[in-house]
Amino acid sequence: MQFGAWGPPLCKALQNVLHEDRLFPAEPGIRTIARALYGRTRALPIVSPHGHCDPAALAGNTALGDPAAELVTRDHYVLRLLYSQGVPLETLGVQPLDGSPAERDGRQVWRAFMRHYHLFRGTPSRLWLEHTLGEVLGVQTALRPETADDVYDEVCSKLAQPEYWPRALFDRFRIEFLATTDGALDQLEQHARISRSGWQGRVVPTFRPDDVVDPDRADFRSNVAALGRLTGMDTSSWHGYLDALRARRAFFITMGATASDHGHPSPCTADLSPPDAESLFARVHDGERHPGDAELFRAQMLVEMAAMSLDDGLVLQLHAGAWRDHNPTVAARFGRDKGADIPRPVHYVDALKPLLDRFGNEPGLTVVIYTLDETTYSRELAPLAGHYPALRIGPPWWFYDSPEGMRRFYRLVAETAGFANTVGFNDDARSLLSVPARHDVARRLNAGYLAGLVAEHRLEEEDAFAIAEDLAYTLARQAFRVTS
Amino acid sequence: MQFGAWGPPLCKALQNVLHEDRLFPAEPGIRTIARALYGRTRALPIVSPHGHCDPAALAGNTALGDPAAELVTRDHYVLRLLYSQGVPLETLGVQPLDGSPAERDGRQVWRAFMRHYHLFRGTPSRLWLEHTLGEVLGVQTALRPETADDVYDEVCSKLAQPEYWPRALFDRFRIEFLATTDGALDQLEQHARISRSGWQGRVVPTFRPDDVVDPDRADFRSNVAALGRLTGMDTSSWHGYLDALRARRAFFITMGATASDHGHPSPCTADLSPPDAESLFARVHDGERHPGDAELFRAQMLVEMAAMSLDDGLVLQLHAGAWRDHNPTVAARFGRDKGADIPRPVHYVDALKPLLDRFGNEPGLTVVIYTLDETTYSRELAPLAGHYPALRIGPPWWFYDSPEGMRRFYRLVAETAGFANTVGFNDDARSLLSVPARHDVARRLNAGYLAGLVAEHRLEEEDAFAIAEDLAYTLARQAFRVTS
Amino acid sequence: MQFGAWGPPLCKALQNVLHEDRLFPAEPGIRTIARALYGRTRALPIVSPHGHCDPAALAGNTALGDPAAELVTRDHYVLRLLYSQGVPLETLGVQPLDGSPAERDGRQVWRAFMRHYHLFRGTPSRLWLEHTLGEVLGVQTALRPETADDVYDEVCSKLAQPEYWPRALFDRFRIEFLATTDGALDQLEQHARISRSGWQGRVVPTFRPDDVVDPDRADFRSNVAALGRLTGMDTSSWHGYLDALRARRAFFITMGATASDHGHPSPCTADLSPPDAESLFARVHDGERHPGDAELFRAQMLVEMAAMSLDDGLVLQLHAGAWRDHNPTVAARFGRDKGADIPRPVHYVDALKPLLDRFGNEPGLTVVIYTLDETTYSRELAPLAGHYPALRIGPPWWFYDSPEGMRRFYRLVAETAGFANTVGFNDDARSLLSVPARHDVARRLNAGYLAGLVAEHRLEEEDAFAIAEDLAYTLARQAFRVTS
Repeated sequence: MQFGAWGPPLCKALQNVLHEDRLFPAEPGIRTIARALYGRTRALPIVSPHGHCDPAALAGNTALGDPAAELVTRDHYVLRLLYSQGVPLETLGVQPLDGSPAERDGRQVWRAFMRHYHLFRGTPSRLWLEHTLGEVLGVQTALRPETADDVYDEVCSKLAQPEYWPRALFDRFRIEFLATTDGALDQLEQHARISRSGWQGRVVPTFRPDDVVDPDRADFRSNVAALGRLTGMDTSSWHGYLDALRARRAFFITMGATASDHGHPSPCTADLSPPDAESLFARVHDGERHPGDAELFRAQMLVEMAAMSLDDGLVLQLHAGAWRDHNPTVAARFGRDKGADIPRPVHYVDALKPLLDRFGNEPGLTVVIYTLDETTYSRELAPLAGHYPALRIGPPWWFYDSPEGMRRFYRLVAETAGFANTVGFNDDARSLLSVPARHDVARRLNAGYLAGLVAEHRLEEEDAFAIAEDLAYTLARQAFRVTS
Repeated sequence: MQFGAWGPPLCKALQNVLHEDRLFPAEPGIRTIARALYGRTRALPIVSPHGHCDPAALAGNTALGDPAAELVTRDHYVLRLLYSQGVPLETLGVQPLDGSPAERDGRQVWRAFMRHYHLFRGTPSRLWLEHTLGEVLGVQTALRPETADDVYDEVCSKLAQPEYWPRALFDRFRIEFLATTDGALDQLEQHARISRSGWQGRVVPTFRPDDVVDPDRADFRSNVAALGRLTGMDTSSWHGYLDALRARRAFFITMGATASDHGHPSPCTADLSPPDAESLFARVHDGERHPGDAELFRAQMLVEMAAMSLDDGLVLQLHAGAWRDHNPTVAARFGRDKGADIPRPVHYVDALKPLLDRFGNEPGLTVVIYTLDETTYSRELAPLAGHYPALRIGPPWWFYDSPEGMRRFYRLVAETAGFANTVGFNDDARSLLSVPARHDVARRLNAGYLAGLVAEHRLEEEDAFAIAEDLAYTLARQAFRVTS
Repeated sequence: MQFGAWGPPLCKALQNVLHEDRLFPAEPGIRTIARALYGRTRALPIVSPHGHCDPAALAGNTALGDPAAELVTRDHYVLRLLYSQGVPLETLGVQPLDGSPAERDGRQVWRAFMRHYHLFRGTPSRLWLEHTLGEVLGVQTALRPETADDVYDEVCSKLAQPEYWPRALFDRFRIEFLATTDGALDQLEQHARISRSGWQGRVVPTFRPDDVVDPDRADFRSNVAALGRLTGMDTSSWHGYLDALRARRAFFITMGATASDHGHPSPCTADLSPPDAESLFARVHDGERHPGDAELFRAQMLVEMAAMSLDDGLVLQLHAGAWRDHNPTVAARFGRDKGADIPRPVHYVDALKPLLDRFGNEPGLTVVIYTLDETTYSRELAPLAGHYPALRIGPPWWFYDSPEGMRRFYRLVAETAGFANTVGFNDDARSLLSVPARHDVARRLNAGYLAGLVAEHRLEEEDAFAIAEDLAYTLARQAFRVTS
């Protein structure tokens, strides 16, 4: 024991990483308050209004597959950090598009991960993984290169047991609402299977139309044609295209959707006159584009979607500011989503003005803005959401879904926007296994933040309990229109 | 009592929000030092070199009016947050320009405010309000929807008593210097009334010429004409216009002014040749403008004002970076200053260069820069003010006049610019009632910050006491040239 | 003693500034851990891969000169803050270029510094100076205006003693590797003298070719010609110019260099086709430039240098984003590097793309990026370095080589980039005397940061010890390819 005056000795076993006080501020007075606040929220049901879990897992409800695929190969956070330190993606099980060989043995992938596990010290990936292994799967073995096989075998064994199958996990996690993310052309067959199965878990789609809205995608035109076939509408015309989108939204709503999601390079919006919008569509659809037309079209479509939201009630989520596939070598060899997306500066005040000019004062519309440019929190997003009835600020996203990111978030937005203009937590998870870890981190961080306010007499005790529940549960239900 | 180990129980009564240790860091060692530092500054006189109190209140010295008008309807912080959560501005007593009905009963406005008071948890508005009610007015009732009438009646009763009339408050607050903000065309009659009255309170104007300097204002040309009538000069000519401004500055100085203030969309400055400046004036004045002329003219006028400051000694304050009236719906219905101003990114290093090239090395000039873009503190403003003799950094402004904003401020500027290149605190208050709350928050935050430096052995005890006094009192007097 | 509950009384004597717990967090639990972590690193050897010490001092190894020249006149941090508060640079011993008089008596310069020493309260300059005087030179006298002469005399006396001569200091400081910064035209005679002397101290050059790469410099063309004479190559041709640079790099490598350094106004990179690059060189060399050619040429040269690095192994350091000599009055009167450099916003994601497209996936290349725009840490640099194998993030630079700057740094980068994509500490010192102070500040700050992670159970104890050593020693050796 090295730090006699400070607390109990820590050994290297996994359960110590999962200390009951983890992520709380160290100051004993604040920590005591944080424990109490966390005690109020730790067992609240999970509302997960934004994420990327695969609905097929819950529809099929068979054992999750290889742990390495689930926890390494599909996790862009893990891929990126290992790649940055020279680990080839092939070693991690990522298959090159050209059919070149990649590691197919999950055990080998897991060993490679564990050999470099020290790289994850201080990262949220480690927090999530150890929560998942320790608390979800009950693994008691410390994560080290030399224990890689033991852990791998233990995880495989656990995942095979019915109590670790997806629906059992869903129920154990107390998930009350889980939204997936689904392309506009998706038939939502997995959601239908879930619905038909009689299982009561609430798994709903989110309408993500980027594939039929972004003219910069190579498959834009064919996607728009598919949209026409799917809806029986003439999507070669502007009005037919809009009607087809309305039809898809209506279909998603019948399947439970309460929100749309839009992943755009920038948050630009536009509100062209109807004839100008129609001409723009013709140009991007027929390929005779002017410079800037693709960006302008995406911008216009955000305002069209807001108009539709005002009619059909879908919450509009905007995730903007990532340069997707910044590394052409990786994209050419492996395709999208391999950890090579990089944020850029964004300016919401100009970009959102056309949308806000038209719909910003509508209390019936909810637009949730996420950012990868933290400078905009205090300068732009808190002032905007603290004024416009239609705007809300999304939780820290992606690189900021982390202890430090969360610590910065409320300090930057709450004083100007209040808590009511935020929307609680999103886990953004790609594996059902990691959903509880992410909510737990957020609940702990929020407890610690609120405890600091109480300890400094900036917030009453009873208000802190109320806000803790809001941030963990209530705001997400309200903002995403989850009805019981 | 829920947090046994942590401290005394808090109940919901108002006086507990006003805990004697509020806003100090929770760590007991730091808190002890903070108390001592705050003990040195809490009773120092108030120097208020920048704010928006109405001089008529001090000239007339009768009871302040309806508390809802004073504390709700005129407070853009309060309006904005309530509006963002769907409360119509009419409900808050804001009168539409077209004569449509709005609530005129202060009691009803106050009830609406209290119904939504939970929205202000964690905001500085709540800190200021509770200090004002509890410490200034002696209200003992907790603020809740159900106590709205009691509090309203108590405040009305207090405000009617002579010891709560403006001059009595001014004296009780120990205000040593209070600057108001006044348009270039203002005759300063209220300041003259104060002066004639024989009352010794020092209430001085600040020369704010935006109305005659900003060609984008609809009334620019008529204001310039009025400036000519007021001064007997030919303001249709560049030289006459400049002479008229000089004359107004001289008049403001005779009324006690020590500073000018400039609220510009951007901090751009320009230093055109005299013939180019003259041509520019002709274009903006006569309406045959080139694109960018309005911005260029404002930029040029900052340099002209700096030249005049070097002659007449007025401190030049620049408040830049807000997009005023970002919401056209609100602006059209209710007019300006209704909580719809939004910050934008600004870049001082390029923008100020023309001014600094000409006057940056003048120790006889003081230019105080305020920002709404906190990214500029460590990157631009601290390096600039830490080099140029003419530059000083203004305190955290507007959305950053808050506990978190102040915590970030000195951490971002002091290491590079030192304390001597800052100018102490501005309350920027719109109601005399809230002046002491704002200074008290700043003094507490600064005590906590300096205590942290002492506890980490980064600052000597005696230096911390000296700096605490500088930040609370001395720097404001020096920077704004307050002579005794 | 004013703070009874808090700790031992501090008096104003210098040794108290140098409290054994300085810069550690105040919370006792965290502080205990911080002490233990610092205990592990405080005596580690110093690896100094980036700085501006004068190799002549170590080559000659005679007494360092006048303390005022060493600690005031040559220190741009000190000059800038004093100048900003109205102290003429002449008073500080800075000689005007036109031969106008400046103070030449070091004692008078020192007195002027001490008269204004209060300006440095809360700045890193004060931390460094007091460490240097107290711990390096053993001065026991408090720094005050009235003790200026005593301190000056004591320092002069110390510096004259052989145990304070440069090589003795170098050995006492346990410097294992010290890189200087040297122009491409430098003959490295001082390094050769050191080598020939038989002294074992490892003092190596860094290849800094700005003078032959930046077409905006007035002496660019003559420098390129000198480069040709020095290498015997025809530097009026693109290929001869590149070959000459290769030759200089090879020479630097023979003298021990492991890195190049590039101080550019922006981080722009370009990867033109060979004919386009050749044409560009011809235009900038022969003076018939297009607008933007100078910037484009610098951008192209970064990619050329990266290509050379891939061949010869030099680590490529990029220091970008300072507007050098922002104050033309100071530059005209005193020349460069007088504390008038100001940071500007930079955007790495676009700027570095040409370089990264070509070389970002090369594990054999190391590019270290430093920034003066802290907004880029979490938004751009951590995501980039957390993906591209060739990229590393340099430590907090210049204005951010400070307690607050360091506190922000790891909080902004470690969660996304991990620790392994950072490169440890650089002291960037201009005087050998201040080298240990800077490393000590960094080791203390890092210990405090890691202690906080341990106290919050975000990091295992043993991992914290490992990372503390990495940050203090190992990462710098690895990243800068220091072989033993």
